[in-house]
Amino acid sequence: MFPGTTAERDAADYVVVGAPLDVSTTFQPGTRFGPDEIRKFAEPYDDYDHRTDQFFTELGVADAGDVRAWDDAEAYLTFLSGTLRDVVWDDAVPLLLGGEHTVSYAGVEATDPKTFVCLDAHLDLRTEYDGNEWSHACVTRRVLDVVDEAVVVGARTGSPEEWERAEEEDVTVVPPESVREWLAGFDSDGPVYLSVDIDGADPSVAPGTGTMEPFGLSSTQMRDAVRAVAPACVGFDVVEVNDRDDGQAAALGGKLLREFVYAHAASSGSAPDDGGRADRPGD
Amino acid sequence: MFPGTTAERDAADYVVVGAPLDVSTTFQPGTRFGPDEIRKFAEPYDDYDHRTDQFFTELGVADAGDVRAWDDAEAYLTFLSGTLRDVVWDDAVPLLLGGEHTVSYAGVEATDPKTFVCLDAHLDLRTEYDGNEWSHACVTRRVLDVVDEAVVVGARTGSPEEWERAEEEDVTVVPPESVREWLAGFDSDGPVYLSVDIDGADPSVAPGTGTMEPFGLSSTQMRDAVRAVAPACVGFDVVEVNDRDDGQAAALGGKLLREFVYAHAASSGSAPDDGGRADRPGD
Amino acid sequence: MFPGTTAERDAADYVVVGAPLDVSTTFQPGTRFGPDEIRKFAEPYDDYDHRTDQFFTELGVADAGDVRAWDDAEAYLTFLSGTLRDVVWDDAVPLLLGGEHTVSYAGVEATDPKTFVCLDAHLDLRTEYDGNEWSHACVTRRVLDVVDEAVVVGARTGSPEEWERAEEEDVTVVPPESVREWLAGFDSDGPVYLSVDIDGADPSVAPGTGTMEPFGLSSTQMRDAVRAVAPACVGFDVVEVNDRDDGQAAALGGKLLREFVYAHAASSGSAPDDGGRADRPGD
Amino acid sequence: MFPGTTAERDAADYVVVGAPLDVSTTFQPGTRFGPDEIRKFAEPYDDYDHRTDQFFTELGVADAGDVRAWDDAEAYLTFLSGTLRDVVWDDAVPLLLGGEHTVSYAGVEATDPKTFVCLDAHLDLRTEYDGNEWSHACVTRRVLDVVDEAVVVGARTGSPEEWERAEEEDVTVVPPESVREWLAGFDSDGPVYLSVDIDGADPSVAPGTGTMEPFGLSSTQMRDAVRAVAPACVGFDVVEVNDRDDGQAAALGGKLLREFVYAHAASSGSAPDDGGRADRPGD
Amino acid sequence: MFPGTTAERDAADYVVVGAPLDVSTTFQPGTRFGPDEIRKFAEPYDDYDHRTDQFFTELGVADAGDVRAWDDAEAYLTFLSGTLRDVVWDDAVPLLLGGEHTVSYAGVEATDPKTFVCLDAHLDLRTEYDGNEWSHACVTRRVLDVVDEAVVVGARTGSPEEWERAEEEDVTVVPPESVREWLAGFDSDGPVYLSVDIDGADPSVAPGTGTMEPFGLSSTQMRDAVRAVAPACVGFDVVEVNDRDDGQAAALGGKLLREFVYAHAASSGSAPDDGGRADRPGD
Amino acid sequence: MFPGTTAERDAADYVVVGAPLDVSTTFQPGTRFGPDEIRKFAEPYDDYDHRTDQFFTELGVADAGDVRAWDDAEAYLTFLSGTLRDVVWDDAVPLLLGGEHTVSYAGVEATDPKTFVCLDAHLDLRTEYDGNEWSHACVTRRVLDVVDEAVVVGARTGSPEEWERAEEEDVTVVPPESVREWLAGFDSDGPVYLSVDIDGADPSVAPGTGTMEPFGLSSTQMRDAVRAVAPACVGFDVVEVNDRDDGQAAALGGKLLREFVYAHAASSGSAPDDGGRADRPGD
Ligand SMILES: [Mn+2]
Ligand SMILES: [Mn+2]
Ligand SMILES: [Mn+2]
Ligand SMILES: [Mn+2]
Ligand SMILES: [Mn+2]
Ligand SMILES: [Mn+2]
Ligand SMILES: [Mn+2]
Ligand SMILES: [Mn+2]
Ligand SMILES: [Mn+2]
Ligand SMILES: [Mn+2]
Ligand SMILES: [Mn+2]
Ligand SMILES: [Mn+2]
Repeated sequence: MFPGTTAERDAADYVVVGAPLDVSTTFQPGTRFGPDEIRKFAEPYDDYDHRTDQFFTELGVADAGDVRAWDDAEAYLTFLSGTLRDVVWDDAVPLLLGGEHTVSYAGVEATDPKTFVCLDAHLDLRTEYDGNEWSHACVTRRVLDVVDEAVVVGARTGSPEEWERAEEEDVTVVPPESVREWLAGFDSDGPVYLSVDIDGADPSVAPGTGTMEPFGLSSTQMRDAVRAVAPACVGFDVVEVNDRDDGQAAALGGKLLREFVYAHAASSGSAPDDGGRADRPGD
Repeated sequence: MFPGTTAERDAADYVVVGAPLDVSTTFQPGTRFGPDEIRKFAEPYDDYDHRTDQFFTELGVADAGDVRAWDDAEAYLTFLSGTLRDVVWDDAVPLLLGGEHTVSYAGVEATDPKTFVCLDAHLDLRTEYDGNEWSHACVTRRVLDVVDEAVVVGARTGSPEEWERAEEEDVTVVPPESVREWLAGFDSDGPVYLSVDIDGADPSVAPGTGTMEPFGLSSTQMRDAVRAVAPACVGFDVVEVNDRDDGQAAALGGKLLREFVYAHAASSGSAPDDGGRADRPGD
Repeated sequence: MFPGTTAERDAADYVVVGAPLDVSTTFQPGTRFGPDEIRKFAEPYDDYDHRTDQFFTELGVADAGDVRAWDDAEAYLTFLSGTLRDVVWDDAVPLLLGGEHTVSYAGVEATDPKTFVCLDAHLDLRTEYDGNEWSHACVTRRVLDVVDEAVVVGARTGSPEEWERAEEEDVTVVPPESVREWLAGFDSDGPVYLSVDIDGADPSVAPGTGTMEPFGLSSTQMRDAVRAVAPACVGFDVVEVNDRDDGQAAALGGKLLREFVYAHAASSGSAPDDGGRADRPGD
Repeated sequence: MFPGTTAERDAADYVVVGAPLDVSTTFQPGTRFGPDEIRKFAEPYDDYDHRTDQFFTELGVADAGDVRAWDDAEAYLTFLSGTLRDVVWDDAVPLLLGGEHTVSYAGVEATDPKTFVCLDAHLDLRTEYDGNEWSHACVTRRVLDVVDEAVVVGARTGSPEEWERAEEEDVTVVPPESVREWLAGFDSDGPVYLSVDIDGADPSVAPGTGTMEPFGLSSTQMRDAVRAVAPACVGFDVVEVNDRDDGQAAALGGKLLREFVYAHAASSGSAPDDGGRADRPGD
Repeated sequence: MFPGTTAERDAADYVVVGAPLDVSTTFQPGTRFGPDEIRKFAEPYDDYDHRTDQFFTELGVADAGDVRAWDDAEAYLTFLSGTLRDVVWDDAVPLLLGGEHTVSYAGVEATDPKTFVCLDAHLDLRTEYDGNEWSHACVTRRVLDVVDEAVVVGARTGSPEEWERAEEEDVTVVPPESVREWLAGFDSDGPVYLSVDIDGADPSVAPGTGTMEPFGLSSTQMRDAVRAVAPACVGFDVVEVNDRDDGQAAALGGKLLREFVYAHAASSGSAPDDGGRADRPGD
Repeated sequence: MFPGTTAERDAADYVVVGAPLDVSTTFQPGTRFGPDEIRKFAEPYDDYDHRTDQFFTELGVADAGDVRAWDDAEAYLTFLSGTLRDVVWDDAVPLLLGGEHTVSYAGVEATDPKTFVCLDAHLDLRTEYDGNEWSHACVTRRVLDVVDEAVVVGARTGSPEEWERAEEEDVTVVPPESVREWLAGFDSDGPVYLSVDIDGADPSVAPGTGTMEPFGLSSTQMRDAVRAVAPACVGFDVVEVNDRDDGQAAALGGKLLREFVYAHAASSGSAPDDGGRADRPGD
């Protein structure tokens, strides 16, 4: 159980869901242990947040456990998406713990945002990788089938096809050196889904991830992005954390989840406005 | 390069092939790093084997590198099998380094043995696992479509369906406590493929594997089995080694490969007799 | 959740309770992570046990989670004991996951056995250690205040005072070399509590423990002891597992818990007979 | 022995004392190994400091070894304080290696400073934690019973009660983003005790600590704080280093100790002026 | 094989050569595993570089494997230098993977540059260390016998003799805080050899090295230095990476090698102009 | 300090000396950390030995610390030998902690035994290795220049030249399977030096060593050999322990040292009789 998730699932405003999918990682596997690593290394965090003057335990967060993964990613996403849509229908914000980045697709499908903001070293805009269109290297491309626009913050690598796709109007790439400026100007006109691929951070900050990519974001840049974007959000995830470091990646992941909840809750007394996009059919 | 593999691929009597498939591991992933871990930890072994009075470097072993894996196991097996069949057609014995146990199927398909002898904690006799018939938990079942009989040495766990299947005539289960006796009586009447799933060993001996299963074989039992079976063999593999220990599993895996080659070479001056089953079509 | 604990707490025949007490470990701390490490590394075990022809998921095992620990061991034991006594009053067998060995006292107090059988490298018969009578090094001494006799299986070290105490009639010491013989003659005339201090095993088998002591039991000796003693038991624990190895100690601990349940359940269709010693007051 | 501590204890100007207390760590234990880890990872540092043109071996530093810890923190602090007071009475500056942060209390008691400056992620201003007033989470609160004022540099988390206490006049909180500014204005009007809780650093810089807290100080910020404060100091410690990373935390801890000694020695030809507060009774 | 080294050795413009010398490391050994660690952790990097619009696989890079090391450093350097000179004579740029820093001498000898630019925490200007003039702590001093000038970027420690030597005209020391300024003014009037001692980086960035020295360069500073200097270079190395972290040092080392190749290739359509200093005798 | 070494150096009957030489290890380096790892992992052992009814702290053991190593092995051996000879001249038994196996030569030179008994996987009978006659792979050959006979217990690998040398009269090879028998018949007619190369043990028992060699001795076989040989000994060492496992190799090494002292002390009330071979010149 993620520390401080004292709410009942049905009464919750936020619901943590673990999604330990780990089938397409190309380099270092282990993200299947990500959800439990994040839960473990969030243990020492204080309940109280001084900046927003809130207690995590009073913000209505529940932990629904993991949706057990198997090796058919597409089928898994469908199933996971259903679980997350139930969360949305219960007027709660899903907080997804990956697992590989692929699982963000389920989060997006369930929350139906206008914009996908993603902290990531990689563009993840491939149409397929090794013949697999559900590879973690394709997730932002898949997500663009659902959302109106994608912003990849901290991106620093990709294939020519990905960079070409990134030049289209519905994609914004914010390289690490432009993050502060982008944050200063950030303004959202519709519901956002925020996805934190932990490899957006520099490997010194988050070595426990499948594909370390040097020259990344600092932990405070990650934090400031989460704080800035959270108020506009209908869904959130932290993905690509594995168990191959001494807890740095998981500690950061768990902290960013808490920063998300504090910032989101502080900005609205009520459940997030989803623009009517994710209503239960028949509602 | 596996240490001591000084032969040219074309002139070799034994060819090491890495098969870093790592898609169906249910618990701890990382067997994709198995081939290189085994190569690394075989570094300190002496070239000379006192028991058989042979030099490894004089036994005609080549290292053909890895057959890069992707996440479609069935397609990969077909491709890998082709690579291994080329080895067989060149009158050499393939020495496969996994990767997950699934890759043994390709080894068997390429060498077409009569008998599949396998050191393994698990029966691996499932028809499918989580809907996947090419899971490592099904490999011996798949292999039984090709061979006449399977012997699972060191087996100590399985599902009821697996145990039921194991009672049929074409399967022999040798529990850890019966290994010495079985070895004493071992006699082969046809070509054998020997597969070493490193989890056949006790976790104290080989902790670096995907699914540790206590109460397993000692390293000397593993060695004695390899020595006894090798002379009858047309193919060999070591699988399920990962990078999650301090080198114990890889060190054992590399040593058993060498024991295989020493024992096999000592028993025959020429290339192994494959009973005419794996001839190149048209030869 | 310990894998396979599908029963509801109230309807369960066996209840797993984590007790992450970690205050008196003299050398390598970390046994606070023991319960979750054991749960994690029990993941890959098959549900079905061939020897007893039983499914773990059909044996009525629940996981009640952890009883959060703090640094007042004596107060914690009182609280923990209450939790475990509830389990007993519900006619279930408590399966305690340590945590340091001290927690066994709570298990004993809750189950009120006649005999305490303990696998341990150490006598744990000190009256106090560094002024602390609730140190893990004193647990068997404390337990002797409650039970009629203690048997320390695999014991190989202690202070002179401990060895002297061990010579009294109510203590039996079974050194590692005598375990097979002792098991052959084991017969119980009253309810037993079985405690597995994982350091009873040789460090090669269970390096992840607070005070490794070489020349210990093999994993099969541990298993055979658990199988032999389990039928007589009213309570069970695995203690002193920490997170400082590659999973070997936790994997063994989780396996022994399963062996306990299989053996105990196979020996009795009903809940264990506790000789009327642990009845709820007023029942 | 800390590298370069070539002075005799009696003739020393600085005395290293290890204090491996490790009883109240709430999350990851192991700080008992802190003193030896710091000694080990200080091995490769050059004797010569270019900035101050001094040799560490010529600055009169002795290593008095460890004061062995046991689990009664309060009694231990009394004993440790006596050892450190002896150092002070011998006109030397104690350099304490923790161990948990609690040990700073003994350092403060022995040196009787006017001001307690502390690098820490946490306020450590609780009155008690889990009923324990000698928890590491209470150390700055305890210290405030002895000193006139406390400054917590790098603080970023605490309970509401801690933040409330922090608003009183005798406490200054310097958040990470204000450290440079605070350092620029730092001026001391009385003896200072400087305590480095290594978790003041960002987890990327010092992952080997009991309670990682993201968004912390960089190593150069830590260094600049030590350099600025050292000249005013009568005592120093580095605490909360454990053995759970690859040496980063220990390497930083040992380096900061050296920076302290270089800066302190460079600022005064003689032993530090303690304002007459810590004189031996009867002197 | 370093990922993406698809060129044939004879036709290559760049040749990777591993030099696993590991005999003089004073603190943490293991740099013998550096070449293979770097190759492994370079696996996930994209082939395409967006900044320079180039594919690594199209830049003519070959991997010639390792030059096996033994414990006579001086003899090894002679041999290694021969191997590297062959690379130079074939009009290719050697890319050396250490091994200890000593191996840079062979790179310099083979490429005969005018200037030696080196990222390093240490001056490496000793005449000998423990009586050994071929210690890694002497490499820049040795190199100064061959080149006209040396620049040590990121240097922050050394002995008085080293600092004195550094004040001579042929040595420039760029402390970490002056790197940006130095880069802005960098201009080369002759061939340069660029050596990356990974300990130039802060230990948070590259913990896996023999002698961590806090307060070092960030990964982007390292990158910017490589990008700026590469166009002037006739040779390059990454040294002092070992296997004692979670891949951070190796990942950075492999990335910097790629940055070097991208920047070097982008600046010249042809092989580097070596100023006629390294011509094959008789050419 | 090795735990329990309470004697003063001058008054001691046994003197621990660390010899962290680590220059010729061919595979995994790190034995320089061996002495401190052994001291650390010997911490939890009881002072009292039940078998011999002795307290370690009463047996007169001192720890003289380490003889700092440098990279000229031959010069180091001369220096180390002098230190050890001082121990012998003070009528104490040296207990050497390696460091690579080479250091045994210094122990032998200082104690001048008739017989060298060595637990080792390797024959170590090479005349030179990579041109180095002081490689750890040559130590038993070097020792044979000093002693009358060598017995290599647990040996299982070597070059043809080594096996040939081993057939001469002054060498006895006891393979792992013959150890029990050899121990039963062991009888010494002159002073013995006992060297424990920890790689004599199976890698499951002692993974933390430079060159793991499977199929080795169990920990109890190692112990029984030490107990049997100790009474005849004038010197003892434990070598080839490094820091690359979770403490298993060091824990075993420290335990065997204690077993040696208990067994040696129990067999003689006085200092060992060295047959007059190691008298101080002029005595
Ligand atoms: Mn991604
Ligand atoms: Mn990514
Ligand atoms: Mn298998
Ligand atoms: Mn298996
Ligand atoms: Mn115990
Ligand atoms: Mn114990
Ligand atoms: Mn603190
Ligand atoms: Mn703190
Ligand atoms: Mn250097
Ligand atoms: Mn350096
Ligand atoms: Mn040896
Ligand atoms: Mn050896």
